Amino acid sequence: MANRLKYWGWGYEGHGLSTSDRDALLHTLATVYGVTATGTGAVPALDGIALPPGRLDPPASLDSICTQEPYERALHSFGQSQPDSIRLFASDFGHAPDVIAYPRNDADVAALLDWAGEEGAALIPFGGGSSVVGGVTPDVADGFAGVVTMDMSRMNRVLEVDTLSRAARIQGGARGPQLEAALKPHGVTLRHFPQSFQHSTLGGWIATRSGGHFATLYTHIDDLVENVTMVTPAGRMESRRLPGSGAGPSPDRLVIGSEGSLGIITEAWVRVQGRVRFKATAGFRFPDFLQAAGAVRAIAQAGLFPANVRIVDGVELAVNGAGDGSFTLMVVSFESADRPVDTWMDLAEECALSHGGVTDTDWRTDPQAHLTGAAGAWREAFIRMPYNREVLTPLGIISDTFESAITWDRFESFYHDIRQATHDAIRESTGREGAVSCRFSHAYPDGPAPYFAFHCAADPASMLDQWWEIKRAVSDAVLDSGGTITHHHAIGRDHQPWYERQRPPLFGDVLARAKTHLDPQGILNPGVLVRADGHHSSS
Amino acid sequence: MANRLKYWGWGYEGHGLSTSDRDALLHTLATVYGVTATGTGAVPALDGIALPPGRLDPPASLDSICTQEPYERALHSFGQSQPDSIRLFASDFGHAPDVIAYPRNDADVAALLDWAGEEGAALIPFGGGSSVVGGVTPDVADGFAGVVTMDMSRMNRVLEVDTLSRAARIQGGARGPQLEAALKPHGVTLRHFPQSFQHSTLGGWIATRSGGHFATLYTHIDDLVENVTMVTPAGRMESRRLPGSGAGPSPDRLVIGSEGSLGIITEAWVRVQGRVRFKATAGFRFPDFLQAAGAVRAIAQAGLFPANVRIVDGVELAVNGAGDGSFTLMVVSFESADRPVDTWMDLAEECALSHGGVTDTDWRTDPQAHLTGAAGAWREAFIRMPYNREVLTPLGIISDTFESAITWDRFESFYHDIRQATHDAIRESTGREGAVSCRFSHAYPDGPAPYFAFHCAADPASMLDQWWEIKRAVSDAVLDSGGTITHHHAIGRDHQPWYERQRPPLFGDVLARAKTHLDPQGILNPGVLVRADGHHSSS
Repeated sequence: MANRLKYWGWGYEGHGLSTSDRDALLHTLATVYGVTATGTGAVPALDGIALPPGRLDPPASLDSICTQEPYERALHSFGQSQPDSIRLFASDFGHAPDVIAYPRNDADVAALLDWAGEEGAALIPFGGGSSVVGGVTPDVADGFAGVVTMDMSRMNRVLEVDTLSRAARIQGGARGPQLEAALKPHGVTLRHFPQSFQHSTLGGWIATRSGGHFATLYTHIDDLVENVTMVTPAGRMESRRLPGSGAGPSPDRLVIGSEGSLGIITEAWVRVQGRVRFKATAGFRFPDFLQAAGAVRAIAQAGLFPANVRIVDGVELAVNGAGDGSFTLMVVSFESADRPVDTWMDLAEECALSHGGVTDTDWRTDPQAHLTGAAGAWREAFIRMPYNREVLTPLGIISDTFESAITWDRFESFYHDIRQATHDAIRESTGREGAVSCRFSHAYPDGPAPYFAFHCAADPASMLDQWWEIKRAVSDAVLDSGGTITHHHAIGRDHQPWYERQRPPLFGDVLARAKTHLDPQGILNPGVLVRADGHHSSS
Repeated sequence: MANRLKYWGWGYEGHGLSTSDRDALLHTLATVYGVTATGTGAVPALDGIALPPGRLDPPASLDSICTQEPYERALHSFGQSQPDSIRLFASDFGHAPDVIAYPRNDADVAALLDWAGEEGAALIPFGGGSSVVGGVTPDVADGFAGVVTMDMSRMNRVLEVDTLSRAARIQGGARGPQLEAALKPHGVTLRHFPQSFQHSTLGGWIATRSGGHFATLYTHIDDLVENVTMVTPAGRMESRRLPGSGAGPSPDRLVIGSEGSLGIITEAWVRVQGRVRFKATAGFRFPDFLQAAGAVRAIAQAGLFPANVRIVDGVELAVNGAGDGSFTLMVVSFESADRPVDTWMDLAEECALSHGGVTDTDWRTDPQAHLTGAAGAWREAFIRMPYNREVLTPLGIISDTFESAITWDRFESFYHDIRQATHDAIRESTGREGAVSCRFSHAYPDGPAPYFAFHCAADPASMLDQWWEIKRAVSDAVLDSGGTITHHHAIGRDHQPWYERQRPPLFGDVLARAKTHLDPQGILNPGVLVRADGHHSSS
């Protein structure tokens, strides 16, 4: 069973929260925020899951790359969203995919698209399955003859490395650790580290506009894409590999963010970097989140481009055992393959201190500052966070996050409005109080990307409804307050209604026409980006 | 006549090359490169120009914002390309627009689009008219009832400045100097300075993916756009103003680079910056262009993000009186609103010197280094370059530029191939030798944007054909060698065939469908981006 992925949660079987981490999490939620268990659910046993009868029969030519095994069908029934987790622990597998296909190359991808089209089956592209917004959850409208999930994990190679240009050609199904391992002998790194790094893929990052390691400058995978190849039902679309271009609207920008609804991203040339040789991290404490935000703004507008400039509020620190709730933490780090970063760090430190920050960990004296103090404790918690959900959901505790971006002039009111709306929604939906926290995941000269988390006890019998009630309220608030429905989590199925509100209606029309041309039968990830029924806002 | 724009060349009447600059240019071309005058053309007098009879009659409701004056029709008959100039001096005004319209607001724009649609007239958006690729030249296919050129110069205001977020809302018709003058009292600057700065507009920059001041990092206007509003025949399309987003394919990226073929860009929120307080410029000499390119690569890959890191070869320096042809010049500069730039400059200097550069102007001792030495001389020449064409064309001398981008691994062969192809094409087309030069306009970690210029004597009677022969050969070479047909000059009418070769065919189909939806009658800038006859590569 080693290295077999869990069908009920994050990562591999046998990996998860330690007992002490689990106890500490539950203890803090209960004693500090009054969030206590209401349920006693357990992981549904594989042989007890009622999978619907398979409706599809792959042709002999595709048989060797297709499977209908129960474990595979269960594994691909959900992504990593809160509603996915609630439905999973409720043994709701009625929408399980019929067939899981593992293409080895572009020809396999094209053959699978052809076959699904002939069958009238929906096709769900699946990278690492880490979507927290229902992007890989095979809930498709009636009318499809079945569902094929296309798991890209066999197309996982680094095909070429160009160290002169610092670029690499990588297959869409390569997971973070795989591609970094293949790049390492060449002395380069992609350095794109989303929280899902272990179990997400380059193709998935491009399809969802993933946000990675860098908190400034190269935040989204968008900035790292030199070209991209997408196989669509209408044929193969490959852009020219270029460091920059001004030749018409960017073809890559149609593919980036297309969320599997226009085609399958089979490979891309991406920009890599020299491996980090110089690094410094500092931690600062602020009495107030908004004061810390002012320091982030100063650093973001100074043209320093730190690798990291995150602030984490007292609630998030407390929930994760990295603080007592009395202060906001700022983590600033600089990295370089080429030269010492002291000048940069000096200037950022000046911004932090002049905005009322107090040193928590000192970069001058502590080369391991990123591993110590509140910064180190929060970093540890950040890495294990994806494991929390499989613990909390069966206990009836909702624990979810959402994120946005907003310009600085509107940030303060946005921050107050969204926190208020989240607290109100929790109270109205569950009848209880919850915990709401905020951090910045990324920062731009013109505004931050605030990232909210909330935790509350639900009624086990109506947990999914209660979650949706909260989700609708906070999503409405995000849009009403001027934010984006997502900065880097993507749209998936869960954000689709708000995405349609946010998107200029005429652009929605253009996307629908792109979809009709590239995927004439509408089989690709139906319900995501362009609705399966062809509905879009202005026509 | 003060401040009236020339209909035959660059800028205002009364402005142009001084006699001594003109003599020096002709002297160098003749004595160093053997390029001598073959013609004795003169500016066609306005009252001698045979404008075709006007075919359109604006309705009373639009009369006050429309004109059919001969000067206005002549002024809007051409942009600033080499073929434009050749045809102008040949008095070829047969394609002059029938009506010039000056909208004051979005409602005027919509009314003009409606009227042109009803008439079946083509509509050419016109910002500053600086296109060097035929982007505003009203050559439209047969079948249109006439041509309306929409001059955006009355929509030229800065509407809002948000100094907290460092952003401003600016109308599409604002020219560079106008918008900078309006931003200045707020202590901010857009700092987007294309060579056409004086006579180009924000809307034009966005429509053509303009390349500006910064040689690294924020090279294209793309990076400075927070949102954009475009008025199309199908309605108004306005994106949400955000510092960053991951919500589906970017709607702005469909508008950026749309070259007036999908709609009229009436306003945008753009990212501005604090005004520069710290600045340093250094000049270095290299014996060889490729050696200098190595230094650029080192600087571009070191994460230093200089405001400028240009190299100019000996030929370009000599033609412009900034060198004797024996060396390549590198200009490096750093700028900051916030902090001294010495550390950055130190590191860049180290790269330049370690790659064989020799100091030409020393940033440590000379705070005016950007105005002195070869760097200063070339800077002077750069500013007056747009005036060269109106001097050279009537003398039968072709003097044109083209630009591309290519990854570092392919740059060396690209450089050799393109220079060779240009020399060969000049010889084959004109039977004479010409001068060919190269510089870098922008540099990325993964490759440079090489910018070529060429000068040759043509036969006055077949100057246009000879230019096209050269243009076709060098454009073929650029595509064959892996480059982009344009890095920042745009596509216009002149690059359209190569753009169609470069663009993924399926993406061309998507653009054609976008065009059909947003501009159902195909009246907007026909022939640009999507061909007027609806032809595109794959369907």
